Amino acid sequence: MKLPEVGPLDPEAMADARSRMDSLTKPIGSLGRLEDLAIQLAGITGDPRWTPGRRTIVVLAADHGIAARGVSAYPQAVTAQMVANFLGGGAAINVLARRTGADVLVVDIGVASAIAVPSELPLSVRFISQPVRRGTADMTTGPAMSRMEAEAAIEIGLDIAAAAIAKGTTILGLGEMGIANTSSASAIVAVMTGRSVDEVTGRGTGIDDPARALKVAALEGAISMNRPDPADPIGVLGAVGGFEIAGLAGVILGAATRRIPVVLDGFITGAAALVAAALVPGVSERLIASHRSAEPGHLAALTHLGRRPLLDLDLRLGEGTGAALVMSLVDAACAIREEMATFSSAGVATRSATTQPRP
Amino acid sequence: MKLPEVGPLDPEAMADARSRMDSLTKPIGSLGRLEDLAIQLAGITGDPRWTPGRRTIVVLAADHGIAARGVSAYPQAVTAQMVANFLGGGAAINVLARRTGADVLVVDIGVASAIAVPSELPLSVRFISQPVRRGTADMTTGPAMSRMEAEAAIEIGLDIAAAAIAKGTTILGLGEMGIANTSSASAIVAVMTGRSVDEVTGRGTGIDDPARALKVAALEGAISMNRPDPADPIGVLGAVGGFEIAGLAGVILGAATRRIPVVLDGFITGAAALVAAALVPGVSERLIASHRSAEPGHLAALTHLGRRPLLDLDLRLGEGTGAALVMSLVDAACAIREEMATFSSAGVATRSATTQPRP
Repeated sequence: MKLPEVGPLDPEAMADARSRMDSLTKPIGSLGRLEDLAIQLAGITGDPRWTPGRRTIVVLAADHGIAARGVSAYPQAVTAQMVANFLGGGAAINVLARRTGADVLVVDIGVASAIAVPSELPLSVRFISQPVRRGTADMTTGPAMSRMEAEAAIEIGLDIAAAAIAKGTTILGLGEMGIANTSSASAIVAVMTGRSVDEVTGRGTGIDDPARALKVAALEGAISMNRPDPADPIGVLGAVGGFEIAGLAGVILGAATRRIPVVLDGFITGAAALVAAALVPGVSERLIASHRSAEPGHLAALTHLGRRPLLDLDLRLGEGTGAALVMSLVDAACAIREEMATFSSAGVATRSATTQPRP
Repeated sequence: MKLPEVGPLDPEAMADARSRMDSLTKPIGSLGRLEDLAIQLAGITGDPRWTPGRRTIVVLAADHGIAARGVSAYPQAVTAQMVANFLGGGAAINVLARRTGADVLVVDIGVASAIAVPSELPLSVRFISQPVRRGTADMTTGPAMSRMEAEAAIEIGLDIAAAAIAKGTTILGLGEMGIANTSSASAIVAVMTGRSVDEVTGRGTGIDDPARALKVAALEGAISMNRPDPADPIGVLGAVGGFEIAGLAGVILGAATRRIPVVLDGFITGAAALVAAALVPGVSERLIASHRSAEPGHLAALTHLGRRPLLDLDLRLGEGTGAALVMSLVDAACAIREEMATFSSAGVATRSATTQPRP
């Protein structure tokens, strides 16, 4: 399939943003990672004065055949029920998106059960139904999906990003829903980072030790049966992926090629980012890691991507909740850059000691 | 001096808040520290449905005699200049407070230089001028202040909290400004936690290695000369404290006794919290640790208080910037608890596996 190209960050915009930051009434670098964030955003967008306008959290939902193996604490029907909850405005992502003024775009890209779509959606919620298939196959008995299906899901993601951006979205947050999708994410992260399944597999929605041991064994079996090759990321999606994960990889690529910042969420979106970054060079610097999930594989994925998460709040819900929380930090970082007084405008003395190197 | 009493957290309100959290459409505990925060707020206020209303960041400013020893990268005049910047609305704390709808209450409790107060303040900014004295004495040549002055500063803080709460403040954030006040904070934290000065002394506004070595030596000298006793926290303030730090301890006590949540900021407010917690039992559980500062002594103080910071963004500015950022998380935690659908209201199935212990 033809994938978009992604250019490097804009060094001039970053230098301009840094110079502006250094002129503000605060010791140089004293706002730490907020300053880094403002500078990264300048590099991504090419605009040293970039400020977020319309923001959208894209929540992709799909089911996973491996759910039949008892790897989750919840029945598969919960995927469709939670999608209906997103559409009704009652889920955590709705609450947190409202707080940061973000739209929620919910996409059924492969949900197994029927979704009870409400007759009227809340103003800030939209729904797209574009299932590749009604859930992946059970990866412990064969590949999760065909190569063609993996490519179709990526294309859907590319189209979603393009349409959201055409409608005015200036920054995208990623979210997902899919019972058993930490299983798929663990398998992808193990394959793409070369770590053991055991090391990158957690408790998902809250399974106990025996269920986790079963999950690890099932994933080891799936990998040894389907033999995914990390040099072929689309093949990895076919072997052990999920439709929402493939779709999220497409959303990332669609945003990155248009210089639109992408805020990752938790473990599942981290797995999608690994795939996107392996498919197209230059992607990872365009990603903002929102938080470090309680899932152990998440840090492995972020480390592989060279991303450091902004929050560490033991979140393990997904849906885009971490991405929505970080939108406030994006707003704060840009407001600092735009609204603070400079040393000269405020008549504040600069440092008296000899100039020291940037800490 | 007579200090207010502080009661224990309300266990019933916490149990109610937890039970509400567990009924929402998400795996139990999956919003991690946001859930803990909502439950702590219920315990502090005694109200399981508490939601923040009016919020105030109290920024106490004072000067430090030890600044004459070259322990800061900035001249002492910057304290007054930055207070004028707060009053003009151009400082980082103004920008971040506006984003979270917080008032900024600036208090001159001991600034050495004249403050150029603007003829008109921004709507959300207020100013109180109540200096105990125009800066502490140089603690390397004698005590920073008298015992009576330390008590006067605590009283001012108590009064400020009482007045802000009487005017409708429902949650208080702490902030401060004072050239060389990381020196005072390092000395206080060393004495109160029993750690070495070297271990709890950092670069403040950005001094280099030789200046930091000088700062450590000056503080060691001040401690060995003034012999502060950790069992006498007011004596510690007298020996090596600052007027803003003593005042902040008073603000903490005034809020804690009225069940008003207090959001700490960085290193300086952490030192004030150590003093307040040593003066009155039951204070520390009522504190919300907003962030972990780049100053090494901050984590020592928070560990001593049994508090875990919510953010780790390498901030080292003070002013209340970390406290203002965390107000968004307070809002988010309470909105989650109030606005999310429950499993029964949304028709979402609960977990299918056998019940597992809370992770």
